[in-house]
Amino acid sequence: MSAIDDLVTELSRLPTIGRKSALRLTYHLLRQPPEQSRRLADALVTLAEKVRPCAECFNLTEAERCAICADPRRDTTILCVLEEASDVPAIERTGEFRGRYHVLGGRLAPLDGIGPSDLTVDALVARLADGTVREVIVATNPTLEGEATALYVQERVRGTGVTVSRLARGLPIGGDLEYADGVTIAQALAARRAM
Amino acid sequence: MSAIDDLVTELSRLPTIGRKSALRLTYHLLRQPPEQSRRLADALVTLAEKVRPCAECFNLTEAERCAICADPRRDTTILCVLEEASDVPAIERTGEFRGRYHVLGGRLAPLDGIGPSDLTVDALVARLADGTVREVIVATNPTLEGEATALYVQERVRGTGVTVSRLARGLPIGGDLEYADGVTIAQALAARRAM
Repeated sequence: MSAIDDLVTELSRLPTIGRKSALRLTYHLLRQPPEQSRRLADALVTLAEKVRPCAECFNLTEAERCAICADPRRDTTILCVLEEASDVPAIERTGEFRGRYHVLGGRLAPLDGIGPSDLTVDALVARLADGTVREVIVATNPTLEGEATALYVQERVRGTGVTVSRLARGLPIGGDLEYADGVTIAQALAARRAM
Repeated sequence: MSAIDDLVTELSRLPTIGRKSALRLTYHLLRQPPEQSRRLADALVTLAEKVRPCAECFNLTEAERCAICADPRRDTTILCVLEEASDVPAIERTGEFRGRYHVLGGRLAPLDGIGPSDLTVDALVARLADGTVREVIVATNPTLEGEATALYVQERVRGTGVTVSRLARGLPIGGDLEYADGVTIAQALAARRAM
């Protein structure tokens, strides 16, 4: 049956959804009112058509500028640099950051052919030109590629005279020393603080 | 951002997809070419518009009759009765059944308000009227409600003189006696066969 097979194929293109889950989801939708499938289809089309990168920070938005860049209450002197737009909600959820963002659109990964020109670093440096921003917090992921990207960003920003900081590394709250990996413990030791 | 929130909401209506997975899937789609979201949307709309129950057996189809009912090579003397259309592929995969199907559209579940009139048992009895079918294999699920449904189907079919059988119960192949539940072992004991 082509309609069922087609949907199973499309669903199984999504990460973490295998053929079996795709089949289960499809049969689930067939047991629901057709409006549910239509609403999901509409949401997908709207996403594909309307969502684009913010002209300023490259966060995702349906307008020219994202809600954060457009918010006059946000601190314009501090920028948080992230790999992906999906990292923005993680920082926002903490409620601790009142500045603005800059989304790189990935991380340096020479083996995957992703170099500096694929990231929005030039745009970041251009944003710093007028002297409003005083500090750039680099919040790339604590991975090898994230670190390399952070170093590259730091290098590029240094010339502008803006302070560059990065998120602290250490033991995660609620974590267990016994199960922490060696690199994390090593970083926690190196960055130990007086009590 | 409403387009992202809308899609997250719609995706998290699906079983086994929580808000976090829905968010991950949404951001994944945003990193793909928009055509991927559109193809998924198209497949959903096609499903909602075209797929309907087969006029004969209530399996799902895009035509008046499903591919199995329309196939002249299938044995018309034997019917396999299933709870859901999603059970058809499970039987088909074995390659051991060459008859046709009858999909009940659920199982008796008085607590959920599902009674005999919600199932396609009347249509099943009507299919047996012309005497072509010689045997009905009841393949409802081996659950309490599936068993109750099987008994009800047997009761209704008995009057027509057609043989009623049901799938054997016992230890699953590759299973381990140590981990089998007591009811399964009890059924395997009761249905033991001479070697």
